[in-house]
Amino acid sequence: MDQFTATYTDQYQLAMAQVYFKKAAREKEAVFEYYFRKLPFGSGYAIFSGLEDLLKIISDLKFSQADLEFLKKQGFEDDFLEYLKDFKFRGKIYSVAEGDVVFPTRPILQVEANIIEAQIIETLLLNLLNFQTLIATKASRMRLVAGDATLLDFGLRRAQATGGYFATRAAIVGGFDGTSNVIAASEFDIPVSGTMAHSFVQSYDDELTAFRDFAEGRPQNCVLLVDTYNTLKSGIPNAIKVAKEMEERGLKLLAIRLDSGDLSYFAREGRKMLDKEGLDYVKIAASNQLDEFVIKSLLEQQAPIDIFGVGTNLVTGDPDGALDGVYKLVFSDGKPRIKISESIVKVTLPHKKQVFRMKDAKGKCIGADAVAMFEEKHIEEMSHPYEPYKSMKVGKFIQEPLLKLVMENGKVLIEKRSLKEIAAYSSSRLAELPQEYKRFNNPHIYKIGVSERLKAERDQLIKTFKDKLK
Amino acid sequence: MDQFTATYTDQYQLAMAQVYFKKAAREKEAVFEYYFRKLPFGSGYAIFSGLEDLLKIISDLKFSQADLEFLKKQGFEDDFLEYLKDFKFRGKIYSVAEGDVVFPTRPILQVEANIIEAQIIETLLLNLLNFQTLIATKASRMRLVAGDATLLDFGLRRAQATGGYFATRAAIVGGFDGTSNVIAASEFDIPVSGTMAHSFVQSYDDELTAFRDFAEGRPQNCVLLVDTYNTLKSGIPNAIKVAKEMEERGLKLLAIRLDSGDLSYFAREGRKMLDKEGLDYVKIAASNQLDEFVIKSLLEQQAPIDIFGVGTNLVTGDPDGALDGVYKLVFSDGKPRIKISESIVKVTLPHKKQVFRMKDAKGKCIGADAVAMFEEKHIEEMSHPYEPYKSMKVGKFIQEPLLKLVMENGKVLIEKRSLKEIAAYSSSRLAELPQEYKRFNNPHIYKIGVSERLKAERDQLIKTFKDKLK
Repeated sequence: MDQFTATYTDQYQLAMAQVYFKKAAREKEAVFEYYFRKLPFGSGYAIFSGLEDLLKIISDLKFSQADLEFLKKQGFEDDFLEYLKDFKFRGKIYSVAEGDVVFPTRPILQVEANIIEAQIIETLLLNLLNFQTLIATKASRMRLVAGDATLLDFGLRRAQATGGYFATRAAIVGGFDGTSNVIAASEFDIPVSGTMAHSFVQSYDDELTAFRDFAEGRPQNCVLLVDTYNTLKSGIPNAIKVAKEMEERGLKLLAIRLDSGDLSYFAREGRKMLDKEGLDYVKIAASNQLDEFVIKSLLEQQAPIDIFGVGTNLVTGDPDGALDGVYKLVFSDGKPRIKISESIVKVTLPHKKQVFRMKDAKGKCIGADAVAMFEEKHIEEMSHPYEPYKSMKVGKFIQEPLLKLVMENGKVLIEKRSLKEIAAYSSSRLAELPQEYKRFNNPHIYKIGVSERLKAERDQLIKTFKDKLK
Repeated sequence: MDQFTATYTDQYQLAMAQVYFKKAAREKEAVFEYYFRKLPFGSGYAIFSGLEDLLKIISDLKFSQADLEFLKKQGFEDDFLEYLKDFKFRGKIYSVAEGDVVFPTRPILQVEANIIEAQIIETLLLNLLNFQTLIATKASRMRLVAGDATLLDFGLRRAQATGGYFATRAAIVGGFDGTSNVIAASEFDIPVSGTMAHSFVQSYDDELTAFRDFAEGRPQNCVLLVDTYNTLKSGIPNAIKVAKEMEERGLKLLAIRLDSGDLSYFAREGRKMLDKEGLDYVKIAASNQLDEFVIKSLLEQQAPIDIFGVGTNLVTGDPDGALDGVYKLVFSDGKPRIKISESIVKVTLPHKKQVFRMKDAKGKCIGADAVAMFEEKHIEEMSHPYEPYKSMKVGKFIQEPLLKLVMENGKVLIEKRSLKEIAAYSSSRLAELPQEYKRFNNPHIYKIGVSERLKAERDQLIKTFKDKLK
């Protein structure tokens, strides 16, 4: 998946870059921050994902000869194109660790670079982080309700084209166990699994012969799909016959798969039929339009399902097609920068910043992050960013800084972790979160505060702009 | 975007392929068909998109050395891997033309190949066609409500990772005029456009200087974003100043852009302010969470908006994350194949087939397609597929066959068309559709019928299976 050149961007980034270039502002330093405004899926938290891909891509990013020729045809000027020829991101990036639990309206990542480089990577950064964070969050919600059941991603066919490749990666970060997606499994070292399609059964004149052939051709990890013709009258009885024949060869059928009808009913009946024949080791896998709500409902009904194969709703994040992450300028040319809005909620927080996660002495999150000036090391009091009379003494808490330097001079500083390690980290961070923030419906809101210094800076800037408009 | 190798597939395709290979069924001929069950967005039609990409990718598809090594580690056997080394799709594909208007539950594309090749391309085929058809349909609905306004895709930052690349292509097929997505514009020869970001204005100490610099650095196609601080008090007055200064240099400001607040109100006020200064040529562009409903509402309010920039809702197809397209076996080993279901609606139609679009003498669609056996050239009567007493004489109509041979021996047979040509074709096909199928809300249902021969074949197969289960 090496499709990223520096033209993986919006045209206006280059239009602005050319103006900065011509106005000799090419060395103008800037700080941008990435955050999102609204949690998806009614979730109480999100899982930050996509960082390692992003850093790798940024560290290699350049304009190809074909890119430059295309831009020339678009009217970009020769001296600017000459500059782009040597383009390389040479800035710094501070970020929350991939897999961490994150919340709205506080910086998750900050880019500190000259303004041209910082703009050119904007679209790419938003594109990768918004999507993977969306899907990791969706996967995490499924993991929360699924307990110890195996969760498999079966979504590639319904994914948003090649987005499916990154969806699979993010699903693992969020707690999935494996995927059917071969290319993603190969690239990211993910356990790959698969069963059989209805077409396999249909391509035979009878189901039993189809099952027999499949079990012979695939003696290990054999899963038989039992609903092509009639689940209880044909599919499961034939699977049982083949399981017995496998036993005679010293083999074990791994599972049967249900892909239609009332999954709870068929799972219960199937379990009974299997157990009656001494096939209690044969697992039951279910698929067909699953999402976190259906999985929750099936398990609440105690449907004996061991493996859930989830497709469309996982890989597209349905019903939320996107995380609304944004990338805002907070500092440039030695000055704090702000985006004013009629609504205080949409006014950005100026300055390069740090985010502190408040923890008690046992290391458990107390349910609040504080946003502070980057230089602040410990804060005594935090205020609500919009409600003037709400504040809280926080001096006594452990204050864990979340934004760490992960890139410098365009070079990745953090060690590459396997997806398994990222997923384990994510799970450990989720464990530090009190239950009420992980509640499936109407979770408690994880608080945000701003330090007194930062609040004063913001309010001063708002005042200056208001005065100008008078 | 050359990321497609033959492992862009679900693992079960390879698991089944190995069984077919070992059971010497590798030359088993099969026919699969692609169709979808449900129209997205409450639309009365869909726009078929993605075909040319798909054919190109299939014609080049192979397993790389790295793919084969990965599969070996997964336990695939050496003789099978040896076979995959020379894998090439050598089959035939029949398809509806890209850009045509399509409807549910009738074949849009048929693959006729040996069963291994037909299975291995399944996931890729579904992945590309489902997504592009979804987005082209979404774009087409926006085009229907937008009339002659310019529609621009601004979605890359919120797209589902690299899915955005294909979303842009499909948006053009569906009737969009251009995109901000540079890499897609370059690859697919799409007009590329862009404005400026809030960060550009923020990076200056004052808005007027920012606008001046931008207008100097980008004298052509200059669009000024007027809502960073205060649209009516600051943004538009500063844009007017700069437009006047541009006039003195013999230049023209292309447009102002509104990106927040009440777009209808600001567009009306903005239009008045511009016109009063003789700047009636300066266009008004609007963006911010637009979708077909908001565009329709804005134009019904007669908001004087000339250009709509659409992001998230276009490129993710929100609120429908996926088209539910499927790929079903209909013929193999010289026999028709069927998927039985408790519900007649979900029973597949067996056999290699043709789809006829019924037209009157003037070439206007009458609102029905008929599905027939592939050999049938003209049908006299069609029946409703599920309702036993509904039928219709159709002998008098022009019967346009929709499925044409587009690939043979794995080679693309159709000439490459530009996206502009595909979009024009799509628009001409849409024009043949009576208005009631294009109605924005509650459109009329485009009928489907099956020929008498096909119906008899299906009913006979259902009977055979029922008898077997007795």
